[in-house]
Amino acid sequence: MSLRHRAWLQLNGDPPGDGHLSPGNWALAIIIIIAVVASIVSTEPDIEAQYSTLFLRMEWFFGAAFSLEYAARIWTAAEEPGTQSDLRKQLAFIFSPLGLIDLAVLIVTLLPILVPGVGVLRLTRLLRLVMLAKFGHFSSAFRDLALAIHSRRYELYVTIALAGFLLLIGATALYLAEGSVQPEKFGSIPRALWWSIITLTTVGYGDVSPITPVGKIMASIVALAGIGLVAMPTGIMAAAFSEAMQQRREELHKNDHHDS
Amino acid sequence: MSLRHRAWLQLNGDPPGDGHLSPGNWALAIIIIIAVVASIVSTEPDIEAQYSTLFLRMEWFFGAAFSLEYAARIWTAAEEPGTQSDLRKQLAFIFSPLGLIDLAVLIVTLLPILVPGVGVLRLTRLLRLVMLAKFGHFSSAFRDLALAIHSRRYELYVTIALAGFLLLIGATALYLAEGSVQPEKFGSIPRALWWSIITLTTVGYGDVSPITPVGKIMASIVALAGIGLVAMPTGIMAAAFSEAMQQRREELHKNDHHDS
Amino acid sequence: MSLRHRAWLQLNGDPPGDGHLSPGNWALAIIIIIAVVASIVSTEPDIEAQYSTLFLRMEWFFGAAFSLEYAARIWTAAEEPGTQSDLRKQLAFIFSPLGLIDLAVLIVTLLPILVPGVGVLRLTRLLRLVMLAKFGHFSSAFRDLALAIHSRRYELYVTIALAGFLLLIGATALYLAEGSVQPEKFGSIPRALWWSIITLTTVGYGDVSPITPVGKIMASIVALAGIGLVAMPTGIMAAAFSEAMQQRREELHKNDHHDS
Amino acid sequence: MSLRHRAWLQLNGDPPGDGHLSPGNWALAIIIIIAVVASIVSTEPDIEAQYSTLFLRMEWFFGAAFSLEYAARIWTAAEEPGTQSDLRKQLAFIFSPLGLIDLAVLIVTLLPILVPGVGVLRLTRLLRLVMLAKFGHFSSAFRDLALAIHSRRYELYVTIALAGFLLLIGATALYLAEGSVQPEKFGSIPRALWWSIITLTTVGYGDVSPITPVGKIMASIVALAGIGLVAMPTGIMAAAFSEAMQQRREELHKNDHHDS
Repeated sequence: MSLRHRAWLQLNGDPPGDGHLSPGNWALAIIIIIAVVASIVSTEPDIEAQYSTLFLRMEWFFGAAFSLEYAARIWTAAEEPGTQSDLRKQLAFIFSPLGLIDLAVLIVTLLPILVPGVGVLRLTRLLRLVMLAKFGHFSSAFRDLALAIHSRRYELYVTIALAGFLLLIGATALYLAEGSVQPEKFGSIPRALWWSIITLTTVGYGDVSPITPVGKIMASIVALAGIGLVAMPTGIMAAAFSEAMQQRREELHKNDHHDS
Repeated sequence: MSLRHRAWLQLNGDPPGDGHLSPGNWALAIIIIIAVVASIVSTEPDIEAQYSTLFLRMEWFFGAAFSLEYAARIWTAAEEPGTQSDLRKQLAFIFSPLGLIDLAVLIVTLLPILVPGVGVLRLTRLLRLVMLAKFGHFSSAFRDLALAIHSRRYELYVTIALAGFLLLIGATALYLAEGSVQPEKFGSIPRALWWSIITLTTVGYGDVSPITPVGKIMASIVALAGIGLVAMPTGIMAAAFSEAMQQRREELHKNDHHDS
Repeated sequence: MSLRHRAWLQLNGDPPGDGHLSPGNWALAIIIIIAVVASIVSTEPDIEAQYSTLFLRMEWFFGAAFSLEYAARIWTAAEEPGTQSDLRKQLAFIFSPLGLIDLAVLIVTLLPILVPGVGVLRLTRLLRLVMLAKFGHFSSAFRDLALAIHSRRYELYVTIALAGFLLLIGATALYLAEGSVQPEKFGSIPRALWWSIITLTTVGYGDVSPITPVGKIMASIVALAGIGLVAMPTGIMAAAFSEAMQQRREELHKNDHHDS
Repeated sequence: MSLRHRAWLQLNGDPPGDGHLSPGNWALAIIIIIAVVASIVSTEPDIEAQYSTLFLRMEWFFGAAFSLEYAARIWTAAEEPGTQSDLRKQLAFIFSPLGLIDLAVLIVTLLPILVPGVGVLRLTRLLRLVMLAKFGHFSSAFRDLALAIHSRRYELYVTIALAGFLLLIGATALYLAEGSVQPEKFGSIPRALWWSIITLTTVGYGDVSPITPVGKIMASIVALAGIGLVAMPTGIMAAAFSEAMQQRREELHKNDHHDS
């Protein structure tokens, strides 16, 4: 096997549904996670001030690592199955969604090194979180999730519509009951919507809550009726995803038996 | 095909379970959503003051759109399958629940245009939220949900009764434990019920919470025992709905195979 | 059919799983609900002061209604299937759990009427909530729920034990992290347990929450790991109950087909 | 049957999946629970001061009980099935995970008795919570749970990764929206993560919450989208565990029929 083919296997070789990553992908996943954590931590002013040299060095390291990875992905793209010329396959990778993400991450990582001063800008730093999208290289799982959601889209529409109606009805009820007593908090339906979202998701910060008996009775009815409705879309999504995974496992199992 | 029949298909032609809306229904759905959003946003005094001319124009537009729709629905009602005369079918539509809702929405939308000064009244504005009921034209999904709930009504009765008992027992326990310490919050069972509803739905605003050790122990027991009970009715409803949709999909699938 | 047998059917005749109540039981259920609501509302001092005469009259009414019901149940107990003498069956009812509950409710209802002054005592009033147990007459559903829970007791033990461990580990972690900073709130494991119960049930009043970075990190880990665990026992219970109901419906359905 | 074999059955004889404990194990379980409760309660300064003599006596008792148990376990380890010599089996127990836990618990229990003054140290007391690990003797249930989780590890990875992404996106959104308005609470992504964890687990203490309209809109979107995602891993775990238990029950049932 050629070196290029072995490099290609390292970068792309995770059989779907298996969940095992190649050593090359493991290394890359760890580098991305460290880069993300560094980006997050560096937004904390105290830590940034104290460890600015460390963060700068890490930026050089991530810049080098992602440059190397990008070059390797272009080089090995020629190993993709297909009858086109090597150059065509390489161009196909460069302009594929994952290829463009890799390029975007590279630019965002290299920019603060090449253009001093830009790295201090809040936005540049946040753009680095784009690198989370690089995880798209590793797994077919997100596609599975998207398919599972798609297969239940009808239930999802209905339950999301119902949740929306309930949020609106709850906000309107409290706007009528408490609008004149707490105008800052319930003085319009958009303001009351903040209450109804925070209540029906059961977060309940306590920054807005009814104080009149009528408001409390209405809030109680809305809370008891709605608690479940707002949670229904997720329940349906979780069930669909779990089921889709179950089916695939059974199919893999059948194929295994068939092969042997 | 006559123009009237094509108009009827545009207004009523969504095959059940498919989820696709006709272009005519898409346009209508979008107009309703915009009208609802405008109604909501216009309750915010700052925005109302600044954009009152825009809101007035939108009201004219919605009035015109809903008048047109209502006329079209009466006109095309003659295309409904059946052997009655056209007039009978049209009267049947006018006095059907959806026909009456359309009329109510039309009145509520036109009133503030025709009777100046009425539009300022809070109640008139809120009545416009009735237009949400117009969504009943689009989908058989709410009927599915109602059927799914009906098929599990026995479980729902029992779990709702249990949740009610628990809310009451929790309120009574805290009334005994904290009634004399925080009379404003736990001084009677109805007052303590506000606590038990906000706690057992896990909203937990924090406006009422026990402060004595005995109250905290009782609240802990109630919270641990009850958290699930209050969520059980929704869980059962979600499962019933998801299952009913699953069955219908399978039936549609069978019919598809049978037809071909 | 004798009058006694018809009265017995009115009081006991709900075929299990059907959910329909006889007219006699409907009337009784409504009386119990009104009596419970009256008991609850009368704990509110303002209302009690204003409507004390009404509450007194209602107590007379409930006393009469429950006396009549108790007498009727003893009288009709002779209609129970079996070969014992009428008196034996009647004694069997008097000393059965439901019979003793009826007697207890009767005493608690009549006491404040017969012994003036006792009705003012808080405890006497609360004892009246015992009348909720009278609902045991109406339905086999609570027995179904108990059976469903029993069939999954093994899962319930394990998940309750896990939830208990997690509550304890969370309390210990926060006791170590915040014990010296907020001694009033986290100064001992029992105190920290109040935090961990209110957090892991996701109630989150906000009366106790970590303020140090270490405490916040630990609380985050505990919250993310534990949120589900504490909800697991309910999920299992809901699934078991829903399944048991489903099975019974299928059995009833089979029997219906078998009979015809 | 020899005395040693009967003692071994008492200490180890719970057939998997049955859930019944031998009388010997019941006694031990109760002692461990009392010892854990005593450890917890003794961290409360007021109670410790008042009942220090009682706690000291209890420590002597637990020390004696656990010494006896440890000796009995080593002695009866020779009854384990296998062809090795008695001594080998006993050494195998001493160096097994459960054997080492028993030794650790023994040391932690005896230390404050043997070395006066050590018992006052906070850490020594907490180490006693290690005794919870002794429950590992009793049940195969935790192994079942671990297996159930393992069988769904792929779904768990995906949903945990998604939950992580959402927590991060939520924190970043609020950092951008409220970072300059509430720098203490949203001034960096790590600080904003505390908000996003407490919000998306629906705990909602209320110590941090958005105050600007933009922040509230973003928080609403994050809350509505994310509430379910963060709960998905648990839902999957609960389903897997419940299913695994169901399967085992069915297998036990089959074996029972096969045996008879």
